[in-house]
Amino acid sequence: MLDFKIDPVDKGIGYLIQDNINNKTKPLGSLGYLESLALKIGTIQGSTSPSLTKPNILVFAGDHGAAKHGVSAFPPEVTHQMVFNFLQEGAAINVFCKQNNIDLKIIDAGVNFDFDHNPRLINAKVAYGTKSYTEEPAMTQEQCETAVEQGAELVEELTSTGCNIVGFGEMGIGNTSSASLIMSHICKLPISDCIGRGTGLSDTQLRKKQTILENASKMHSVLSPLQAMQVFGGLEMTMMLGAMLQSAASGKVIIVDGFIATAVFLVAYMMFPSIMDYAIFSHQSDEAGHKKMLHWLQADPILNLGLRLGEGTGCALAYPLIASSVAFLNNMSSFESAGVSESL
Amino acid sequence: MLDFKIDPVDKGIGYLIQDNINNKTKPLGSLGYLESLALKIGTIQGSTSPSLTKPNILVFAGDHGAAKHGVSAFPPEVTHQMVFNFLQEGAAINVFCKQNNIDLKIIDAGVNFDFDHNPRLINAKVAYGTKSYTEEPAMTQEQCETAVEQGAELVEELTSTGCNIVGFGEMGIGNTSSASLIMSHICKLPISDCIGRGTGLSDTQLRKKQTILENASKMHSVLSPLQAMQVFGGLEMTMMLGAMLQSAASGKVIIVDGFIATAVFLVAYMMFPSIMDYAIFSHQSDEAGHKKMLHWLQADPILNLGLRLGEGTGCALAYPLIASSVAFLNNMSSFESAGVSESL
Repeated sequence: MLDFKIDPVDKGIGYLIQDNINNKTKPLGSLGYLESLALKIGTIQGSTSPSLTKPNILVFAGDHGAAKHGVSAFPPEVTHQMVFNFLQEGAAINVFCKQNNIDLKIIDAGVNFDFDHNPRLINAKVAYGTKSYTEEPAMTQEQCETAVEQGAELVEELTSTGCNIVGFGEMGIGNTSSASLIMSHICKLPISDCIGRGTGLSDTQLRKKQTILENASKMHSVLSPLQAMQVFGGLEMTMMLGAMLQSAASGKVIIVDGFIATAVFLVAYMMFPSIMDYAIFSHQSDEAGHKKMLHWLQADPILNLGLRLGEGTGCALAYPLIASSVAFLNNMSSFESAGVSESL
Repeated sequence: MLDFKIDPVDKGIGYLIQDNINNKTKPLGSLGYLESLALKIGTIQGSTSPSLTKPNILVFAGDHGAAKHGVSAFPPEVTHQMVFNFLQEGAAINVFCKQNNIDLKIIDAGVNFDFDHNPRLINAKVAYGTKSYTEEPAMTQEQCETAVEQGAELVEELTSTGCNIVGFGEMGIGNTSSASLIMSHICKLPISDCIGRGTGLSDTQLRKKQTILENASKMHSVLSPLQAMQVFGGLEMTMMLGAMLQSAASGKVIIVDGFIATAVFLVAYMMFPSIMDYAIFSHQSDEAGHKKMLHWLQADPILNLGLRLGEGTGCALAYPLIASSVAFLNNMSSFESAGVSESL
């Protein structure tokens, strides 16, 4: 049960990769962060000529019991409406995945709606949404573990297709609040440091949200990071947790999206610290707590574009830059092969 | 002579574009800087459904007389060696243009080398490099004007192919120093605020460079921004200037690369301030003066990845994000069309 074997990456090959990078026809270090990415991906794959194959983004959707208390600027039915939008290819994540040739999979982890059968929708529904953490734990322990296992199974199916890099997105009205509660618990920070306007709260709504979350935080005694997920999280977040863990266990590159996905990563990291070796942080979100969360993880995001949309959009937008890092490592000439003089 | 007609962009259509952006199925403003890019491109094209067609990057190469004084970490022959590398598709800019489906054109603006005929190399050589500004103006007025005109002509040829977005790169050992001198002159900043390690100078080399540039700066009385280019610039930079000006004159989106390309843009902006309406700044370089230069221009770069390679690599790397901004504007559903509830 929840038994993941995540090995630290063997960094032994790193000096060979760095040597390759340094011999490319460019001033030393002049590709900046792309050089770090190339080194990281090469090390994950144990190869001086890594490759990215069959990139996927998994978008998990789930409803939140606490959404009925107005912690989000949008009404709860937007979760299932947006799932329809994903299936009709009208959302931002559809557009960016199509542009960048990324396979997109939409997963019903726990939406409070009965969808008709649709070949584009993966049905992994654990329940019709969570309970409200203002009253009781969002999930039972069994629901939490089932969601983790389902997430892991979905990634195992990807492995069989040859996919070696995965990004993770989410849709769940109210899940910014869940992320804040988990962050507060794990990073030991007051709720006020962990909340923001989510999808667009006013000042009054933000104060109300703070009170609700502070009360919820006090109400539950939470012992472990996984319990924080069970008590405050969503089924979409929990399934993402299982998917992230299995991605690392199977040696894939993990692309982390914004505030909510990073909160899920926090839990994964507390459970299996070696997962950090496999993770690339796509962007720093405009959501207030995200910068602090990244800082806590000592994570260096690729983009900082003021995004706060979720759905995995940061992963999809950062993907071409990740691919560029692998491309330069594989395809640029060396000083010797190109007959270019080195620096004086 | 040097007669460009650059009209300010008519911003009248902006509110229609913004209205489209606001009605997309996403929280208001949640695509951050991509929304500003979509608005900018739509406004340049006067269209609520803009498109990017036949993207091109023009890389201009030229040698610098001052390079013989050791202002660069690399020897002068690297300019022509790197031109060969471009033609053999082994440089970073080749790799990134190929990845992102950008047409790449290599232009000999003033390299100190006789290349054999090569269909991939555009011969626009004005001279075998510039003179050293430590002794005399780098170019004659006639050379400077010829280079500007040639750059403009190259862009006119692009126009006939349907290209409506252009990035600009350069290769010229020593041109970081030219950019610093031009920046110092235009922004009225001391040389010490405008220099950095270029492609990788040591502390001692950097001090030597500072002395050389301070002496050169004092030696010449420079009246206009174009004269700053003539006295301190390179033929590759001057041809880029003409190409940038003609791009704006023909209504194209201009993608500005790093320190050297931004210095060229500074001159263009001083000559024709309306060019700002057409410009997108691809990245903030690691070269020390670039941040100040962008700040002076009140320009907001897309990427900040610690790049300092030149060649137009920042343009090529930022291009997918620019394309994403247009893609979401054209292809995302609206709340109404997707049947998604708006915020409460």
